[in-house]
Amino acid sequence: MNYRMMGFVIGRILLAEALLLLLPLAVTLGYGETPVPFLIPMALLVAAGGLLSFKRPKQTALYARDGLAVVALAWIAMSVFGALPFYISGDIPKFVDCIFETVSGFTTTGATILTEVEPLAKGILFWRSFTHWVGGMGVLVFVMAILPMSGDGHGMHLLRAEMPGPAPGKLVSRMSDTAKILYGIYLVMTVLEIVLLVAGGMPLFDACIHSFGSAGTGGFSCRNLSVGAYNNAYFDIVIGIFMMLFGLNFNLYYFLLVRRFREVFRSEELWAYVIIAGAAVGAITLNIMSLYDSVGTSLRHAFFQVSSIMTTTGFATVDFNTWPTFSKAILVALMFVGGCAGSTAGGVKVARVVILEKASAGELRRMLHPNAVPSIRFEGKTLSDRHIRGVCLFFVMYMAIFTVSCLLVSLEQMDLVTVFTAVATCINNVGPGLEIVGPMGNFSSFSAFSKLLLSFDMLVGRLEIFPMLLLFAPSIWRRRRAQGVRRPADL
Amino acid sequence: MNYRMMGFVIGRILLAEALLLLLPLAVTLGYGETPVPFLIPMALLVAAGGLLSFKRPKQTALYARDGLAVVALAWIAMSVFGALPFYISGDIPKFVDCIFETVSGFTTTGATILTEVEPLAKGILFWRSFTHWVGGMGVLVFVMAILPMSGDGHGMHLLRAEMPGPAPGKLVSRMSDTAKILYGIYLVMTVLEIVLLVAGGMPLFDACIHSFGSAGTGGFSCRNLSVGAYNNAYFDIVIGIFMMLFGLNFNLYYFLLVRRFREVFRSEELWAYVIIAGAAVGAITLNIMSLYDSVGTSLRHAFFQVSSIMTTTGFATVDFNTWPTFSKAILVALMFVGGCAGSTAGGVKVARVVILEKASAGELRRMLHPNAVPSIRFEGKTLSDRHIRGVCLFFVMYMAIFTVSCLLVSLEQMDLVTVFTAVATCINNVGPGLEIVGPMGNFSSFSAFSKLLLSFDMLVGRLEIFPMLLLFAPSIWRRRRAQGVRRPADL
Repeated sequence: MNYRMMGFVIGRILLAEALLLLLPLAVTLGYGETPVPFLIPMALLVAAGGLLSFKRPKQTALYARDGLAVVALAWIAMSVFGALPFYISGDIPKFVDCIFETVSGFTTTGATILTEVEPLAKGILFWRSFTHWVGGMGVLVFVMAILPMSGDGHGMHLLRAEMPGPAPGKLVSRMSDTAKILYGIYLVMTVLEIVLLVAGGMPLFDACIHSFGSAGTGGFSCRNLSVGAYNNAYFDIVIGIFMMLFGLNFNLYYFLLVRRFREVFRSEELWAYVIIAGAAVGAITLNIMSLYDSVGTSLRHAFFQVSSIMTTTGFATVDFNTWPTFSKAILVALMFVGGCAGSTAGGVKVARVVILEKASAGELRRMLHPNAVPSIRFEGKTLSDRHIRGVCLFFVMYMAIFTVSCLLVSLEQMDLVTVFTAVATCINNVGPGLEIVGPMGNFSSFSAFSKLLLSFDMLVGRLEIFPMLLLFAPSIWRRRRAQGVRRPADL
Repeated sequence: MNYRMMGFVIGRILLAEALLLLLPLAVTLGYGETPVPFLIPMALLVAAGGLLSFKRPKQTALYARDGLAVVALAWIAMSVFGALPFYISGDIPKFVDCIFETVSGFTTTGATILTEVEPLAKGILFWRSFTHWVGGMGVLVFVMAILPMSGDGHGMHLLRAEMPGPAPGKLVSRMSDTAKILYGIYLVMTVLEIVLLVAGGMPLFDACIHSFGSAGTGGFSCRNLSVGAYNNAYFDIVIGIFMMLFGLNFNLYYFLLVRRFREVFRSEELWAYVIIAGAAVGAITLNIMSLYDSVGTSLRHAFFQVSSIMTTTGFATVDFNTWPTFSKAILVALMFVGGCAGSTAGGVKVARVVILEKASAGELRRMLHPNAVPSIRFEGKTLSDRHIRGVCLFFVMYMAIFTVSCLLVSLEQMDLVTVFTAVATCINNVGPGLEIVGPMGNFSSFSAFSKLLLSFDMLVGRLEIFPMLLLFAPSIWRRRRAQGVRRPADL
């Protein structure tokens, strides 16, 4: 492990977080609120970040697994410092709640321990939602640039071949080029959503909050009733569509930019995403029709909730906890499916679902024709056995962590549906679940232990399992001697 | 497809079923009940079986997939004919309910649509439980002799190497030799349980019923309150231990018989099975302690329920539906784990759980040391990549069928816990679930569609997915011309 370099990178990230706090600080000052909750964390971040990254280490090479450890540690460090404004302002009295809220923000989950959000200071509300936007940005770079680097066959390196920007080469240039393109698309789309919402009559502040929430597929709102508070079809449709757009693989936007339209329309993941969402909207519309006055209203609520849950955002226009069992079951299933790979959405991801489906079909074909060796193709490329096993084992580990978390959270005196959906909504980075953690409920009644466990689950889901699990591997903390040679970045 | 030979085999199986009906017929006559409900099905079985197997086909070779299709069709045919006694006797008025009950019997699930079992005729009750015993026998031969033959890497062919009896050779001799050994062990253990129960004061009839239920890991009882009706610690302990014994890999008994004790004590699956069960018993005992008057009583109920659910039997001594959420969550998780491979138990199986755990750990090691190629060993043998992928995809398909079934059953106006555990208990061949389908509840309130779907799920779980799914493959019903050559049985 190159601890110096790991510290240097984390230090730089903390300095960046200090810079990011300038924006909520400006909002705070604009609304005439006290700037203290932001000034203290900024000072601490500058101090810690400065100390860690004061001197660039001579040895700058990082092993792939060092990179994954840095990602996990950086996410945790950002959350701890990012929790300070909530704590110092007194808006969230318990520090464990501040941690939960901030992890939920940065992981773009949107699960909250707050029973009411409207009384919060504007600056605090802004920072809460801004963490979604920052987290979404971090995820994009993580899945596009860091994960492919580790070349481990766990399913995301299908992105490498499709990666926008230059071909895999020198890490730094590749990362920064990729990042620039992604950030550009991300920023433009966010601004576009803000403009459209303001044009429809939403206050600028609220428009920013909900656009940050859509962009990061987070789901924190500034209203107790979430998007439903406005009861405005235009807002529902704009936010509903933008959530779906942010749940798309960002490679597709890159292809659109460079006019490779055929690649967009031939994307298997895009079609699977559209078909799954469409089928869910249709089924739910029929199922809830008797609850609303018109088919149009049913369709609007079905579309918004499907878009919100499948993209793992978590906004709500209605309390779907009161919907029939069938609709609720569909929403819970969609939580696990999640959005597209290479988006800000969480969940297992549509790409993996498609690969698992194809691999299963291949296995059945093999049973029928024992001598045939069916090849599994995805997005026009044949997948290696290694890759397929990686995707399968990703799913296995995901379900294992989900199951163990459910068992631990079930120690709370809560019903099984609450326990199950609380874990599901956290590991899939959605936000609301059902019953006590339904869209009109919250996580305040959980114990500190459960809140920390659910925070861990949010990070597990957000970082595609491995970085968080690797933190528990003893060998990652052991300084290696014999093998301390530089390795090429493509390991 | 060799349809003639498939028909011949199914015909023989139907004739065997006619013979099996002699036993409940004897019970019926012994209790002075009308023999009609058994005579009519026996006549029909002899007619249908005789027609199908009147003449042995010249061409007797079966493709591996023909064998799997035969298994699926035979199980369905046996269930349809086996449902007739319930229907003719009038004890179960709707035919779809008779089908559900019989599939539940033969698949050794034990889920029932009956609100009360005590008013049933003795002969009918005997047949109901005897289907468990017959089903368990069928499963043993299926997993030991049929599945390995298809050599498809879906996880069960690990059994081939460990199979009792002669080395893989000519199919018929291998199957019958294997079957003889297995049936011998199975019969002796069943008789032993009956003797022990009778010795403790249980009426012979009840002892037979509960021994059939334990042996097949089925769970049908002749008492409305299941084993809890006796409120007898001795019965609880005897049945609890025998359920665990029938959930063990039958290879171990073979090893005991031939005095290869070391192989028994070095079995990884055995240890995993014991450790999982022990941990579950300990956790539940602590969790339910406040509900019972002594630690001993808590331990007794925890042990019985863990043994019952993990071996997918489904007997109950208490209504665990009233237990705290933690205990219920453990039981639901155990449903999916199931018993050992090569036993009469259902579920994913302990062997697969261990393999999935090892493969996941291997994947994490690979992330830490990208150049290492860790080999996955199980029961002293290195598993091939093919095999690991087979186990992974088995799990993926299992969860996919489970999810789709949950969505379809959720169309019922029932709560999510009922829907989830109803499907879980059927696909894992357990019997009771929670809420409406709890140990003191039943499946009578489901629609005919759901009952048929759940029957399908029971068969899917029982036959390790593939035979049932292959029935839906169009190519299995197409007569193949060019490839109509004999293939060796090891395909």
